[in-house]
Amino acid sequence: MAVKKMGGLADVIAGQTAISTVGKDGKGLTYRGYSIEDLARFGTFEETAYLLLYGKLPNDMELQQYKKKLSGLRQLPSGLLAILERLPGSTHPMDILRTGFSALSAFEPEDDVRSQQEIADRLLASCASMLLYWHHFHKYGTRIETETGSESIAGHFLHLLHGRQPSKLHEKALDVSLILYAEHEFNASTFAARVTASTLSDIYSAVTTGIGTLRGPLHGGANEAAMELIERFDCPDDAEQGIMRMLANKQLIMGFGHRVYSVSDPRSDIIKSWSRTLSADAGVTKLYDLSERIEQVMLREKKLFANLDFYSASAYRLMGIPTSLFTPIFVISRTSGWAAHIIEQRAGNRLIRPNADYTGPELLAWPPIDRRS
Amino acid sequence: MAVKKMGGLADVIAGQTAISTVGKDGKGLTYRGYSIEDLARFGTFEETAYLLLYGKLPNDMELQQYKKKLSGLRQLPSGLLAILERLPGSTHPMDILRTGFSALSAFEPEDDVRSQQEIADRLLASCASMLLYWHHFHKYGTRIETETGSESIAGHFLHLLHGRQPSKLHEKALDVSLILYAEHEFNASTFAARVTASTLSDIYSAVTTGIGTLRGPLHGGANEAAMELIERFDCPDDAEQGIMRMLANKQLIMGFGHRVYSVSDPRSDIIKSWSRTLSADAGVTKLYDLSERIEQVMLREKKLFANLDFYSASAYRLMGIPTSLFTPIFVISRTSGWAAHIIEQRAGNRLIRPNADYTGPELLAWPPIDRRS
Repeated sequence: MAVKKMGGLADVIAGQTAISTVGKDGKGLTYRGYSIEDLARFGTFEETAYLLLYGKLPNDMELQQYKKKLSGLRQLPSGLLAILERLPGSTHPMDILRTGFSALSAFEPEDDVRSQQEIADRLLASCASMLLYWHHFHKYGTRIETETGSESIAGHFLHLLHGRQPSKLHEKALDVSLILYAEHEFNASTFAARVTASTLSDIYSAVTTGIGTLRGPLHGGANEAAMELIERFDCPDDAEQGIMRMLANKQLIMGFGHRVYSVSDPRSDIIKSWSRTLSADAGVTKLYDLSERIEQVMLREKKLFANLDFYSASAYRLMGIPTSLFTPIFVISRTSGWAAHIIEQRAGNRLIRPNADYTGPELLAWPPIDRRS
Repeated sequence: MAVKKMGGLADVIAGQTAISTVGKDGKGLTYRGYSIEDLARFGTFEETAYLLLYGKLPNDMELQQYKKKLSGLRQLPSGLLAILERLPGSTHPMDILRTGFSALSAFEPEDDVRSQQEIADRLLASCASMLLYWHHFHKYGTRIETETGSESIAGHFLHLLHGRQPSKLHEKALDVSLILYAEHEFNASTFAARVTASTLSDIYSAVTTGIGTLRGPLHGGANEAAMELIERFDCPDDAEQGIMRMLANKQLIMGFGHRVYSVSDPRSDIIKSWSRTLSADAGVTKLYDLSERIEQVMLREKKLFANLDFYSASAYRLMGIPTSLFTPIFVISRTSGWAAHIIEQRAGNRLIRPNADYTGPELLAWPPIDRRS
């Protein structure tokens, strides 16, 4: 049975999943049955990753063991560090992660010794090390130690970035952000990773696909674009005028609306509240005030709600994170969702190979080369 | 409109393309209107790549210029060569190409200076250099010069591999193989590359997705699996018994049948004829005879026809190509098709983001950690 052409597979059901629901009643999000609100309020990113990868919430002992295991997987092979040193400092950090994850497969290939969950844990645990080793080497000429005493992945990231233990508030705010970004059903990067997995390729290939797909401004790059937008303005009135001008010129404004959510993005309220808390803690409300005004204008003028990317921008900046590392943080988090989907795809695999509607020329006779225009 | 769940998007039309038709009347294949038979008989791989990337067959001057241009793009940045040296000799060659293409983006990023076609040409021209530089460095400890006098990509590959100008017959046989593997509509790797491109990510990310997806044994890895199968047997009768045993045990036999072709794979007859010619030229018919018997058994027992991968295996071996480089040759060729699809996707882009059929638990209450099993 052929289905009439549909742009971008919108509303086409491409397969089954038991991992998450997105957009139930236009706004809901659950990971394996647990609401994103409960996960962000009561859980941690490590609990969330365990839930996604192992299918259940860990009990106290399992969680302690899992955190200890992840803490022990932060060092990278020296050959990989040498490769990171060779990648120019001007490289897009997403290209570093795509290349770094791809290269790690050369040192620690997926084989019978390492299970797919082991590799997923390894990638989750070492992603910040990879990114920030490269970052410090090229920005400051230092070879950092990639072990930290931080118990959480969020704390590890901030510790490596700033060279000191983060405040509890910053660690918790980033932890919540990692929970919010962890999983989102058949979004483009996850779906692409499943297509890769469906040829029975290795998990590194599938995760590399995820990173390359997330890199685009219509997907993971949106939080960086939102930051660049917000930072253009000096005050809320200035922002309102600027946004009105952009709308009049039909310019795309990143961080608003969503293909699947029709009513609102449930993650936005959560990260907005953290952005407000971080602002109050810093005693600097400019970014938050700018963001809120832009949100109001977009709602009033276009009936578009802020999505997760929009308030993530100000929250990240308030933690001192450079814009170029925003999408890489998304990678640290979403690796858990990608891996869960890769595992699920493999468990009931069928090659993902759609058809196309052909719009090109009918059969042409071969023209000798001296008769071509 | 939601479509009922369908495994692997089989028979679902995921978009439009003017690049190729696959499986018309169950067996046809055309690239931009030209039949695969005409392309393999009258054309060259460079003509084919030009057709795919630039939308028309080149005239004589355009073709000469294009070949000259490609010949001038074979050297790699020294930083990339250093990275290739750091990737262990035990690495899967597909992981080398996935990592190498990904790393090249760090040295030559896609920006306004370099057009997408320029990068596609660069990847086509330098792929063999990347692969074989790594190959010789780790196998023989030599740093090879990646320039050769060969005019064609096929000749360049064989020259670098064997360290000498190939015979005209071998160069032509590999050239035909590159034509046959160049493009195949919405196959898994191309479709995955289009999903990556649909987020407006860069061309390197999309091609890296293609490589990682092609790597799987259900896709590009099939020609390697076919070779391993054929080489198990000593003579045709032995092969017949072995295949019958495998069929009785319901083992999957690679290199037969196809998701889209229902009658036959038009590329198979072409590469089979080249395999026969190469056998006759070498005066060694064992591999060809084994292959033919296996083909007969599969047709008789399962009504399955040989696909392109099956006779490519013996053809490649007869050119002295190690099995582990079979799928990488597929990459050299298919890069032209991937790039054509990436360019087409961008020209009429819509984010590719399907939906999923949720099969997991309904909303669950959050269990405190001390109450979890």
